[in-house]
Formats: sequence, C-alpha cells, structure tokens
Amino acid sequence: MSLPPLNALPADDAHLREVCAQSREAYRGHFLQVRQDDVLLPDGNTANREYIVHPGAVMVVPLLDDGRLVMERQYRYPMHRAYLEFPAGKLEAGEPGIVCGVRELFEETGFRAAEWACAGELHNAIAYSSERIEVWFARGLVAGERQLDAGEFLDVFAATEAELADWIADGRVTDAKTMVGLLWLQQWRAGRWALTWKPADAWAHD
Amino acid sequence: MSLPPLNALPADDAHLREVCAQSREAYRGHFLQVRQDDVLLPDGNTANREYIVHPGAVMVVPLLDDGRLVMERQYRYPMHRAYLEFPAGKLEAGEPGIVCGVRELFEETGFRAAEWACAGELHNAIAYSSERIEVWFARGLVAGERQLDAGEFLDVFAATEAELADWIADGRVTDAKTMVGLLWLQQWRAGRWALTWKPADAWAHD
Repeated sequence: MSLPPLNALPADDAHLREVCAQSREAYRGHFLQVRQDDVLLPDGNTANREYIVHPGAVMVVPLLDDGRLVMERQYRYPMHRAYLEFPAGKLEAGEPGIVCGVRELFEETGFRAAEWACAGELHNAIAYSSERIEVWFARGLVAGERQLDAGEFLDVFAATEAELADWIADGRVTDAKTMVGLLWLQQWRAGRWALTWKPADAWAHD
Repeated sequence: MSLPPLNALPADDAHLREVCAQSREAYRGHFLQVRQDDVLLPDGNTANREYIVHPGAVMVVPLLDDGRLVMERQYRYPMHRAYLEFPAGKLEAGEPGIVCGVRELFEETGFRAAEWACAGELHNAIAYSSERIEVWFARGLVAGERQLDAGEFLDVFAATEAELADWIADGRVTDAKTMVGLLWLQQWRAGRWALTWKPADAWAHD
C-alpha cells in the first residue's frame, strides 16, 4: 500500500473541521473550567465536544554553567505521587510567557537567568484541553532565595542530561513536558535545532 | 551555589505528600469527570485540589517497512485546528493497553502490525488530570480498510523521522505525545533505549 505524504493531502483542513453551533459553560470550579459545545461535523451531523479552557503555561529548561539541568521534585495530587520535572507554572491573565517563566523560575528555584531562549510550544491534552505550554530555555543562572507560594512544596536538584535520559528510559520520569524538554535539549546541543538567546528584558519588549 | 543531585535528596517523598481528607465528584459530563478533594499539606495546612479523572490512553508509533512513520491529521476542537499526530485512543474500562493499541491503529489507519513493543508511559497534564498514555511501537505493518467511529474524521499519511523533527522545530507539530514519540524513536534508532518486540497476542497474554 502506498500511503501519501503530508503534502499530497489537501492543504486546507476544511474536510476535517468542526464548527461551533452553540457553546455553554458546563462547570466552573476553583481552577478548572469545562465547556460543552454542540458542533457541526464535516458530514453535516452534529456532536458534542467537552473540554477544559486553560489559561496556558510556561516550562523552563534551566541550564547551569556546568551543563547540568535544574529540576524539581513535586507532589502531583491527581496521580498521588511525586514527579521529577522541569520548573513550570500557569500564565496569569494577559501575562507574556517570558514574564511567567522568569517569575516561576525564581519563585520555585531561586534562580535568575542572564539569557533566555524561546524554543516553541506544546499542546499536552489536545483531546480535551486548550492548554498550551511555552517551552523556554534559561542560562547564565545565578542562585538566590526561592519564594514558594503558600501551599507549594517542592525539592530542587541538579541533573545531567544523561541522567534525565536514563530516568525517562527506565520510567522514573514520565512527565510529558519534561520529556519534550529533553528532546529539545538534545536537538539543540546536537546543532540540529536553533535557539535564539536574549536577556529577559529584550524578550519582554518584543 | 551547589545544587544537590537527586540522590542527595530524601529518598522518601513524605515531606511533599498531600493526603486526602475528603473527596467529592464536582462534575460529571459526557466524557470529563472532575473531582474536588480537600487535602492535608505537608505543613499541616489544608488546600483544595481539583482534577480530571481520566481512564488512560494509548499512543502508537507505527513504523512502515521503508522506515517512514504512519501519522494522522485530525481536527482538535479545543484549539479549533487540525493537528499532526501519532494514532492514539482512550482505553475502555479494564482494557489492556495492547488491545487498545491494536484496535485504535486498525480503526483509524487500517494497519495491522506483526510486532509490538511497549516503550513506556507518559503523564501529560500532571497538574490537573490523572491521564496516563502508554507509548507503543508497531512494525511489520499490513494495510487494510480502516473503520472510523461515527463522527470521526481524520487523514492518514506517511512521514519520515526527519520530516517529523523538522515539523516540531518549526512549530507545525506541537502535540506533546507525538513529540515524545519522536524522542523515543530517535533514542531507539540510536541504540540508546531498548524496545522488546513481540506479536500482539504474546503481549495480551503477559
């Protein structure tokens, strides 16, 4: 069987598109907002789509001068265990990603970074959440005193790239954003994917 | 500043742990279930945790004999656009991952696979969802006629590993599970991470 390449498919996604007929808020909790929309399918039938509306988040891959990575161990209640992960946090309303990244890195780890690079973005639960996570790299790290939010408890530690890779291979690291952080780090260090570095202020004024 | 390595931290995560005091269902929709739990924090204070209870899912990285990958283009309503991604689907109640993988690969793409390998698992929204995605590889693919569920519309196409990497670098692919699929593929092809291949039946009887 010969399967077509992507560029042999229609460039337009009209034949896949689902069009909103009606949208309502189905649930609003302390943090989670669920919407239920009636949609028109490509074949003219209707269906219901239920999804989380999320403000977005930022992950930071912080690189120490000796090449090691700054990571966190944090308890994640939905799975009732602690996870090894890169620092991350939710965007506040209207907040640029770089501002969130600088804030979360400092609050959670105490580090400030001389230079930042925006690698890209990921969508982590496309079936049912609008969440988008910006992926930032930070280097030129200077340590300070972290300022955890009330009710926030986490360990900060340093890991080599090889350790992180081993922990993913053996299942000790299963956080998807952190795995994507390793992918980007490997590609960048191999010279395959580029990063553009600037001070945080220069990003904020972009 | 000298940041400790992971093995210098307490092996136990008791100092991070959040203990359930009370749990209630806050919302049950067609697909999404939200729970709100009162938890006891490590410092003795209380907090509220709100999260999705998810049945889990399976992603399949299907390898054609010529080395290309089978991928899909599917409209993802929460972001109102189509995504390029590996085949995936939700687990049915009590369903082993391999059974779900075989089913979803066939229904969505028409392919059956001679051999399967379980790479591992990922958690894609650890802040607010219990979702766990098993990552499977499939090879020895034989094409057949796909059988989409009612209301399911998606394109199937073939891509090289280099194309997929380029699409992540330039932001055309942002689906986190698919990015993790590339990470695993690269590591396996480089001989760094191992995969154990067996026919689907042998996995189902494990």
